[in-house]
Amino acid sequence: MSRVISVVGATGAVGREIVRLLEREGVPAARVRLLASSRSAGGQVCYKDESLTIQELNSDAFEGSSLALFAASGDVSRRHVPDALGAGAAVVDNSSAFRMRAGVPLVVPEVNGEILLDNPRVVANPNCSTILLALALWPLHARRPIERAVVSTYQAASGAGAAAMAELEQQARDWTAGRPLVTEVVGKRYLWNVFSHNSDVGPGGYNVEEVKMRDEIGKIFGEGAPSIAATCVRVPVLRAHCESVNVEFADGRAYPAEGWARRTLAEAPGVRVVDDRAANLFPEPLDAAGIDEVLVGRVRDDPSRDGAIELFLAGDQLLKGAALNAVQIARRLEGWRA
Amino acid sequence: MSRVISVVGATGAVGREIVRLLEREGVPAARVRLLASSRSAGGQVCYKDESLTIQELNSDAFEGSSLALFAASGDVSRRHVPDALGAGAAVVDNSSAFRMRAGVPLVVPEVNGEILLDNPRVVANPNCSTILLALALWPLHARRPIERAVVSTYQAASGAGAAAMAELEQQARDWTAGRPLVTEVVGKRYLWNVFSHNSDVGPGGYNVEEVKMRDEIGKIFGEGAPSIAATCVRVPVLRAHCESVNVEFADGRAYPAEGWARRTLAEAPGVRVVDDRAANLFPEPLDAAGIDEVLVGRVRDDPSRDGAIELFLAGDQLLKGAALNAVQIARRLEGWRA
Repeated sequence: MSRVISVVGATGAVGREIVRLLEREGVPAARVRLLASSRSAGGQVCYKDESLTIQELNSDAFEGSSLALFAASGDVSRRHVPDALGAGAAVVDNSSAFRMRAGVPLVVPEVNGEILLDNPRVVANPNCSTILLALALWPLHARRPIERAVVSTYQAASGAGAAAMAELEQQARDWTAGRPLVTEVVGKRYLWNVFSHNSDVGPGGYNVEEVKMRDEIGKIFGEGAPSIAATCVRVPVLRAHCESVNVEFADGRAYPAEGWARRTLAEAPGVRVVDDRAANLFPEPLDAAGIDEVLVGRVRDDPSRDGAIELFLAGDQLLKGAALNAVQIARRLEGWRA
Repeated sequence: MSRVISVVGATGAVGREIVRLLEREGVPAARVRLLASSRSAGGQVCYKDESLTIQELNSDAFEGSSLALFAASGDVSRRHVPDALGAGAAVVDNSSAFRMRAGVPLVVPEVNGEILLDNPRVVANPNCSTILLALALWPLHARRPIERAVVSTYQAASGAGAAAMAELEQQARDWTAGRPLVTEVVGKRYLWNVFSHNSDVGPGGYNVEEVKMRDEIGKIFGEGAPSIAATCVRVPVLRAHCESVNVEFADGRAYPAEGWARRTLAEAPGVRVVDDRAANLFPEPLDAAGIDEVLVGRVRDDPSRDGAIELFLAGDQLLKGAALNAVQIARRLEGWRA
């Protein structure tokens, strides 16, 4: 059997979503291999009407795999992607390990999916907040180049993994019970709080998440990509990210653009426009959680800059922000149909 | 006795903070009169070692008042500010009723407090998110004019009043207990969610909170005020607002400004710089709650625009965002010393 799809990190927040999506895509259980650390190995996972046993990730684990989806840390990817390639598998890597490496395509299928026709052996899945932003900016940029976007994020706990989500929920329970709150996973009190993204801050003052957003949009959009000024912030939300985006077009022309932008976004793949001013109904993380599309709304002309517009988006960090984008890439590499 | 300080809306979220601040300022109980709707009248409030009885707000309620602090709705202010003026009191109004009216000064003491030397009879207290933004922008703008600021807010429940705070807390308790969540006050599920500010959205697509921020900064800063592009968003936080701010200077010159900006902010009144990149310690609402200063940090040069900088602030919505600013105005009108 040489058509196995291996999922690395199958017990993590993203890995679990990948398994669910493979199930939804109709991939038979016999083709799915779940790989995880020795701690999780031996556990059982339901898949359709069957039960799959989690196998230990090691250098021989990819035998017979045509495809390997990595949803673990950058260290795990650096160590085991060569094993998967050696076994003849194509790799879709959700970590940051290979994203900026020359020769490794960084893909959001709706933006630059045509790269996949070249049948690359390793494809990197962009960072979650980058993917969501790309879905909203690309349809506009492709028609009227964007020079600059100022982005402030409202990021969910899911981006820090299943343990962070559980810790946030536990903080609500402990707060209710009057117990002290535990802050071991993210290192911050999360409940009733907002804090700057918990990644290292570089000498320029931008944290790793913000640098990723800027660099990855540059690589995905290619020549003429917009400059990104990002501020990445965590909020007490479980699994969908929001982004407030101010968009400046390169032509700097002073004409109303919001109608055009809303119509363009309404026809864009992977986007659902939610923009009801009368009802005050706009993208919210609770509405974005669990669905494939990125919600985009609050599209409006910005009177403070000629021709600029503003918008607000919400997207499931675990789905389009990670697992769904990876499975969409895998589907195209294997020639599935949606 | 003609030196009574009347507090209108004394039982509300802002009114309660005003009473606490008058206590802290050393205003004797005999000078303080608490006014509220008939529903609250008759209730007792501790003030220093005494107990004050809440009196009913009516047209005769201001007799003997030299000062009236209004912390109720715009309707209440429109109806009863004339009564207070008729009784000879000067008025500090926390509602939006008079903010944009010509001839009524809109004051943040650190910015345009010199207007108070003219002894105006009615002074409007700006909107909470405006005050916090003004504290951070003014020290920079006064030295190097700011042309434009792009602002995204992370606003607490307190801005919607004490009932909204209580509803958010109740949602956490109900979620923990597995009960359905009640959303009567703000009309939105708040726990684990983020939503566009619950004020009406105008034809240009900006909600009332965003329009206030733009218009009020214009009035407070005066000629040459920066243009503001605001996106106002509520997050599940109890009582301090955050704002992510991208600042573009009018000269558009491409030199590093973050060092200068951080030093300038460190010396600015009402501001405390919290900007520790190594420790990933920046302004957070939990740290800003209950203190007088606005926390400002994440000051960094924005490579996407010549000479632009970014910053992030957190400030107590009920204190400097409302009650403290009003009491600072009152103090200057009456000639108290801090």
